[in-house]
Amino acid sequence: MQLLEDRIRKDGVIKEGNVLKVDSFLNHQMDIHLFEEIGREFKRRFMNEEINKILTIEASGIGIACIVAQSFDVPVVFAKKTKTKNIAGDVYTSQVESYTHGRVYDIIVSKEFLNENDKVLLIDDFLANGKALEGLADLVREAGATLVGAGIVIEKGFQVGGNILRSKGIHLESLAIVDSMDEKTGEITFRKQD
Amino acid sequence: MQLLEDRIRKDGVIKEGNVLKVDSFLNHQMDIHLFEEIGREFKRRFMNEEINKILTIEASGIGIACIVAQSFDVPVVFAKKTKTKNIAGDVYTSQVESYTHGRVYDIIVSKEFLNENDKVLLIDDFLANGKALEGLADLVREAGATLVGAGIVIEKGFQVGGNILRSKGIHLESLAIVDSMDEKTGEITFRKQD
Repeated sequence: MQLLEDRIRKDGVIKEGNVLKVDSFLNHQMDIHLFEEIGREFKRRFMNEEINKILTIEASGIGIACIVAQSFDVPVVFAKKTKTKNIAGDVYTSQVESYTHGRVYDIIVSKEFLNENDKVLLIDDFLANGKALEGLADLVREAGATLVGAGIVIEKGFQVGGNILRSKGIHLESLAIVDSMDEKTGEITFRKQD
Repeated sequence: MQLLEDRIRKDGVIKEGNVLKVDSFLNHQMDIHLFEEIGREFKRRFMNEEINKILTIEASGIGIACIVAQSFDVPVVFAKKTKTKNIAGDVYTSQVESYTHGRVYDIIVSKEFLNENDKVLLIDDFLANGKALEGLADLVREAGATLVGAGIVIEKGFQVGGNILRSKGIHLESLAIVDSMDEKTGEITFRKQD
């Protein structure tokens, strides 16, 4: 998505340790007009799919998911992160390992809001090692719902998540795939897409 | 806001300890069409105010804030909750006491995204004791920005937050104010508003 790649080049900041900071428009301050364009692009890429629910994960996925949901005219459910070990029986649950925060946390969705009739599109801001997305896919599976695909705003193509998810047959669409970035020159190489 | 009060009566569930569960449409599963109506109503109530930024707090405020932001045509910034004690100097920070979770946490906003030129509307889903909103108001004050007002979806009118914030002169608009609710009968009394 050219508009997004241009924006990442303009406002993204590359930090040590392969960190790409895009918090001026994506995940701290949020540019709603850009989110609307992102929603239209996901709609284009999943045009022929039947989708009746968007599932995301707190916190930074929520804003994008809500604006994207307007393009699909569906409700959003967000998985909650919790450290509570004793989880009641009325939720689906999975575990996610966070490299950024160096810990494992549980994610939960109430059984009321995900069931076997749901055709689910996963939405998140970033894909790196893919653990969060795998956790969300687990919840969909537990619910007996159909996983239609996953829409990611920025994929770090040099990390393993994208390959793992695609090799599992998940229809994954990433609007910008960063194949490499250089903190010294500030140069970013995006993967070519149709 | 009649549509919202009707929806709370229809889909809200009153639980022991003055808990009002609205997670089927507001803060777990999210009804985007309702959020759009909420955005239009906030725009009507803050029609004559100059606003260039919406500030909310993770997690459940983010979705509402993003849709509301479309009515105001402004970006959203969300304050992050953190337990990190050593906070870098490039953020504004305040402390919020959570009665629900029985602990104190820090909230932060990067200094890049809030400054003395900002005219800020706070948005959140719930107002009870008002601690989260007071924390957000602190961040606005630290930044030297102007606090235009606060828009709340559901205020628990029988708790102290609304009175405290109004007595401080904050322009607070709550779209539904629950004055009382009865977990046995399921009855909810809303405060009359213009």
